[in-house]
Amino acid sequence: MRDVAIIGVGQKKVGEHWDVSLRHLALEALQAAMADAGVAQADALYVGNMLSGELTGQEHLGALIADFAGLRGIEAFKIEAACGSGAAAVRMGYVAVAGGLADIVAVVGVEKMTDTLGPDTTTALAMAADGDYEASQGVSFVALNALLMQRYMYEYGYRHQDFAAFAVNAHRNGANNPFAMFRFPVTAERFAKAKMICTPVNLLDSSPICDGAAAVVLAPADAAHALSTAPVRVAASAVGTDALAVHDRRDPLVLDGAVLSTRRAYEQAGVGPEDIDLFELHDAFSIMAALSLEAAGFADKGQGLRLALEGKIGIEDRIPIATMGGLKARGHPVGATGTYQIVEVVQQLRGLAGANQVKNARMGMAQNIGGSGATVITHILGRME
Amino acid sequence: MRDVAIIGVGQKKVGEHWDVSLRHLALEALQAAMADAGVAQADALYVGNMLSGELTGQEHLGALIADFAGLRGIEAFKIEAACGSGAAAVRMGYVAVAGGLADIVAVVGVEKMTDTLGPDTTTALAMAADGDYEASQGVSFVALNALLMQRYMYEYGYRHQDFAAFAVNAHRNGANNPFAMFRFPVTAERFAKAKMICTPVNLLDSSPICDGAAAVVLAPADAAHALSTAPVRVAASAVGTDALAVHDRRDPLVLDGAVLSTRRAYEQAGVGPEDIDLFELHDAFSIMAALSLEAAGFADKGQGLRLALEGKIGIEDRIPIATMGGLKARGHPVGATGTYQIVEVVQQLRGLAGANQVKNARMGMAQNIGGSGATVITHILGRME
Repeated sequence: MRDVAIIGVGQKKVGEHWDVSLRHLALEALQAAMADAGVAQADALYVGNMLSGELTGQEHLGALIADFAGLRGIEAFKIEAACGSGAAAVRMGYVAVAGGLADIVAVVGVEKMTDTLGPDTTTALAMAADGDYEASQGVSFVALNALLMQRYMYEYGYRHQDFAAFAVNAHRNGANNPFAMFRFPVTAERFAKAKMICTPVNLLDSSPICDGAAAVVLAPADAAHALSTAPVRVAASAVGTDALAVHDRRDPLVLDGAVLSTRRAYEQAGVGPEDIDLFELHDAFSIMAALSLEAAGFADKGQGLRLALEGKIGIEDRIPIATMGGLKARGHPVGATGTYQIVEVVQQLRGLAGANQVKNARMGMAQNIGGSGATVITHILGRME
Repeated sequence: MRDVAIIGVGQKKVGEHWDVSLRHLALEALQAAMADAGVAQADALYVGNMLSGELTGQEHLGALIADFAGLRGIEAFKIEAACGSGAAAVRMGYVAVAGGLADIVAVVGVEKMTDTLGPDTTTALAMAADGDYEASQGVSFVALNALLMQRYMYEYGYRHQDFAAFAVNAHRNGANNPFAMFRFPVTAERFAKAKMICTPVNLLDSSPICDGAAAVVLAPADAAHALSTAPVRVAASAVGTDALAVHDRRDPLVLDGAVLSTRRAYEQAGVGPEDIDLFELHDAFSIMAALSLEAAGFADKGQGLRLALEGKIGIEDRIPIATMGGLKARGHPVGATGTYQIVEVVQQLRGLAGANQVKNARMGMAQNIGGSGATVITHILGRME
């Protein structure tokens, strides 16, 4: 097994791109990543995407985007793991390069959620849950997260208003990220008055429906310095899974898939949570931020939210999260989110995160979650000396 | 890079399984393959599927099927490459095992095309074509194949009736395959009278809409004999791509993606067409059988159909194709087809193909095509001594 590096990254500003098609979104991110890497060819392209068929009437994105990007002929597939598709595609690229089956692999995560053919986007997103036992009962994703949030508040004695800390942090960071969808700060007062979506989840607990694409280029670490002036080492790439249906889980308030995925990643990298300088977690809803902090070992059970309340998640704090806005403020174009997270960790490790730069960031973790915890892909990235 | 072997195979009879859900289809094939391999666990599961979201309202099949099969926790993703999804998932499993990132990988291709939520299946299948430039013009897959067939007849002077040779061969073989959907022979006379679907493609030129699942278990070749009494060597696993839109191709009557994919496979295995004892090709429509024979080097341009007319494609002939019925008679549950093809080559190499056994079969090739030639995955399998 070879060490793997990221030699280029690219991203499209997240937003409602009514005038940009799926293939153009992907192209923009992919070309930026390949230009950053200084490569014009790749051995393979893996596309992370969840809903291209349902929302835009297009499957077969691998060959489509390869051809559109001038890479006709190369190996190219779409990888799907619900909202975890973006990092799943990076994982497949990592497997190909680490195993020596490919030298240069391009990965693009892309999702087009506006200007859709239908079904409505909420119905389409519910396909990440168990269709026979959850979605068929009318349970949408926001409803599932509302149930989890309510239970968390009940078990550990939190008030809804306590969750404001996550939204305030994410929006503060998003305001400084030119690729973020929401570039404005929010206050705890604004959180308290935000429109209720599905009690207790309000608008500022939720990530937006949006369009976006982000891309990375992978190469063997021993060739990375020759190819790139700022390569980043992939110290770990790991996956854990769990039941799709929340009622099938061992404990609805423990993300077992994330526990497994993180443990595998720590073992591969030979590190622990104390070594992680920033954590791009999957804050699709506030409750997911709390549960992710716990599953990844930054807080004990029921204490993830306390970490935020104690002011330990900001750029200069113990464990900076959502440093470029997270899913909440940068945005959550579902199949692209996992690649955005990895692009952002690379920016931090390169020292290019601008006003959001985590000082002396040497190791960052990105964790992308499919569904409400059924697929969890964790990447730990480190500076290359 | 390690050599890889297939240590177990399983399949569900192809048909209209109105009473069997997607997850149950997958489970049946997967359990059969794991029982055949004699393993109860796997390091990863890759699911080949094209249309679970569109037709059954379920994405996120990786974790869903892993959990349902008792494999909760393992790495699991869905791999999509239109009708090439089944072999694309096998390719990803091959990459993981060959590269040393996993030891035991289970792969299941599954498609549920009856009892669907909608859109109608023909519309869903058109998502394998270029949505903006083909499907949006109303071009369905049968229409695309009709255009190609018409052009082939015009360029090379064939009559439509000449294509009967493919249907007669496929149905003769399907009649003996207990897992085939259509278990009856057809005659050239019946072909001549078959209902016209889209001139010149008639009913017996076309593969059916159906449900099915097939699975394989992969392991390192050096461990295969310890695990299985009848392992089969993966001599090559290769991919080639082309433009989705037929009008963007260099020549509509040359499957450049298949030429690339086959050439890469021959190079990896160190063999040529003369070494292949049987060829499971992607005969979704008769014209695809002709073009595949040409792209894979068994016939010159325009001569693929002549091979069939000269009686060279039967079980005892020069290059047996569709030996268990092919897409035409075994059936074409799109995302499962690629795994069925590989299962069938394994049956032949193990000497377990019954009345359809190719005598002394030592090396077989399976070629799975996404769309009308945009993604082509080729596997060459060989007996292990």
